[in-house]
Amino acid sequence: MTPHVRPSQPRQPQEPVRQENLRTLNLELVFRHIVAAAGPISRTELAAVTGLTRPTITRIAEELLAGQLITEAGLTHSGRAGRPRVGLTLSEKGPAGLGLDIRADGLAACVVDLTGTVRHLAFAPSAYSGRGAPDVLGHLAGMAGAAIEAIAAEDLTVVTATLAVPGPVSGGVVRSAPALGWRNVDAGALLRAATRHLDLPITVENEANLAALGELYAGGNSLDSFVYVSGGLGIGAGIVLDGHLMRGARGWSGELGHVTVHPDGKPCPCGSRGCLQTYASLAAILDDEPAPRAATPEAAITARAEAGTPATLAALDSAGTALGVALSGMLNILDIDTVLLGGSFSLLASWLTMNAKAELDQRVLTAAWAPVTIRPALLGPDAAVIGAALTSIDQIRQHPTAWLTRQVTV
Amino acid sequence: MTPHVRPSQPRQPQEPVRQENLRTLNLELVFRHIVAAAGPISRTELAAVTGLTRPTITRIAEELLAGQLITEAGLTHSGRAGRPRVGLTLSEKGPAGLGLDIRADGLAACVVDLTGTVRHLAFAPSAYSGRGAPDVLGHLAGMAGAAIEAIAAEDLTVVTATLAVPGPVSGGVVRSAPALGWRNVDAGALLRAATRHLDLPITVENEANLAALGELYAGGNSLDSFVYVSGGLGIGAGIVLDGHLMRGARGWSGELGHVTVHPDGKPCPCGSRGCLQTYASLAAILDDEPAPRAATPEAAITARAEAGTPATLAALDSAGTALGVALSGMLNILDIDTVLLGGSFSLLASWLTMNAKAELDQRVLTAAWAPVTIRPALLGPDAAVIGAALTSIDQIRQHPTAWLTRQVTV
Repeated sequence: MTPHVRPSQPRQPQEPVRQENLRTLNLELVFRHIVAAAGPISRTELAAVTGLTRPTITRIAEELLAGQLITEAGLTHSGRAGRPRVGLTLSEKGPAGLGLDIRADGLAACVVDLTGTVRHLAFAPSAYSGRGAPDVLGHLAGMAGAAIEAIAAEDLTVVTATLAVPGPVSGGVVRSAPALGWRNVDAGALLRAATRHLDLPITVENEANLAALGELYAGGNSLDSFVYVSGGLGIGAGIVLDGHLMRGARGWSGELGHVTVHPDGKPCPCGSRGCLQTYASLAAILDDEPAPRAATPEAAITARAEAGTPATLAALDSAGTALGVALSGMLNILDIDTVLLGGSFSLLASWLTMNAKAELDQRVLTAAWAPVTIRPALLGPDAAVIGAALTSIDQIRQHPTAWLTRQVTV
Repeated sequence: MTPHVRPSQPRQPQEPVRQENLRTLNLELVFRHIVAAAGPISRTELAAVTGLTRPTITRIAEELLAGQLITEAGLTHSGRAGRPRVGLTLSEKGPAGLGLDIRADGLAACVVDLTGTVRHLAFAPSAYSGRGAPDVLGHLAGMAGAAIEAIAAEDLTVVTATLAVPGPVSGGVVRSAPALGWRNVDAGALLRAATRHLDLPITVENEANLAALGELYAGGNSLDSFVYVSGGLGIGAGIVLDGHLMRGARGWSGELGHVTVHPDGKPCPCGSRGCLQTYASLAAILDDEPAPRAATPEAAITARAEAGTPATLAALDSAGTALGVALSGMLNILDIDTVLLGGSFSLLASWLTMNAKAELDQRVLTAAWAPVTIRPALLGPDAAVIGAALTSIDQIRQHPTAWLTRQVTV
């Protein structure tokens, strides 16, 4: 009988599980339980939760301790008599992840350790106009070297680096970053060339995506599905669904700034009309009135709004409404109920939220029975660089054997 | 140094791999390779691709043959002398999946076997106005019984059923299906009650999602990321990303019909304004002129358009434009480059595509360097019921041991 429908094809049939893989799989299993634990966890508890034998746990713990992936720590005293119990927890020495960010107001570098603690955070204000990509990335390479040197003194070794850029990326190439005047810039190759002496694997990723991951980690995964809106010169979004970043088919998801708000609206430099960007970017809110020298655009907008300047208040109102319309479409498509306002929008949230919320409540279909939340993000403008560093260290958290065998690849 | 960021918490640390699990894991691995193979695959090839030993393959093949999951088939002759080689391929007997669909024009039932071939397809025209959910689902239960009886004669056993409904679903409850006049209807419980004698596990899922899965399978997974638009009384979308259905945080993704096209547009019954639905539903295109009795709305629209009726041509133009505007936002958010027009839209595609494509080309940011495609879906109005049946059988394709041990749960 027709139609004949071909059966589903699993994309990647798994690898066979053989005896020699068990050792690695079980080590990674134990390590992930240590990562997931809220605090130190005893060998006995690890045996119970993993179902592995106590001798196996002991052997794996020795290996992890020797590799500086974990450390021994006192457990909370259980109240019973006897010697204090000893637990295992993530090490604050050993492998570290480096994050680098090219943002509207300058360059940033960040190092986190295995526990996710920020151990180094540096910022260099910078104006991009007239500076080429090699120049900008050369400056960033210098900051990377300084960060690696600084944390070496604390017995930390950077294993891999992640670079945040404000635009869609594929294979290290920034396809379009109007804020920087970049088009098809191979940022990965340029940064690798500038950091050749450091011998670092480098990944390049969209800044809104990385900022969303930063927020995910910062919130301790308490919120596992949300849209992170990164406001600034442009407007991008990072989508976290069920605890995972949704990057799209080619890593170009979340182009919220170019979602149409009014089909017949103002022309946008992208070639379309009525894009959210034309209503809610910092430039649109400033409405051609430049910010005073030495003030950031956010500070200029806030000062004018607080002084009751009618044009600024009207611009903020219409930005909030446009943001709400574009976000409503996004939530209707994605089925996500929480929006975090990040980047510049975290500083302007009090002026934008009310109008945006009114549109969300009216336009999101499921809001009729499942409320929608919109609030400022937890991390400030450092979200992307912290997210980048956490993404780097996450490779070791997921695959500790890569560190143990020092065969880290990206 | 602050801020302290909590480490990522893997959601579900994997189960430990122990000797007793190896048997199941390897059986499922071998089976998935047989599923993925384009045709019969020999035991020798299976040993090569899985890395398992020949005796292990032989033992697993015996188990799968005994369970009617696979069958032996002649391989294409390699041209060399010697006895013809024998391969293993999916069985056309044994487990089968049942799909049920409540669609605009009636009720449908479908059974597919393990190979994904449709073995039974039944349709009953039906009008829903004035009929309650128990009545509709009772009718569908009768069709399920008839399907199961019919295919039993072909040595097929239905293992599980999937019901397609036109609206957002959670835990078997249809939250809102205006086309049926349903609100918070526990379709899962009602259908389970009506099919108690059949003892079938039942899953309820949105029809656009299931139709998208039907298209994914029908295309032989050649296209692994696309948006499937299901046009009809309402407008929904199924999102397939990297070969997987993107259901959203609660299974309510793809509410394309309620994406805003014009913020100040006509009121929509959902409570919002300017929703795509108000421009591009069949009712909007018919523009209050009812279809003649006995003609489907699609046929009425096509007849009027072909006769050059100005109002109908204008309505189709504006529906295509509105569809393009809403889809542009969707593609900007999701980073997907292909749209399949399904349901009623597959029949009207020639009248809608040109205007929709013009908007997509202008409004999708990445279209500047990566073209967007919009075309009719492969499967006609049966996409959802076929997708539902394939979803049912896929449980066995993914976990054949559930069939072997007859412990199928959903």
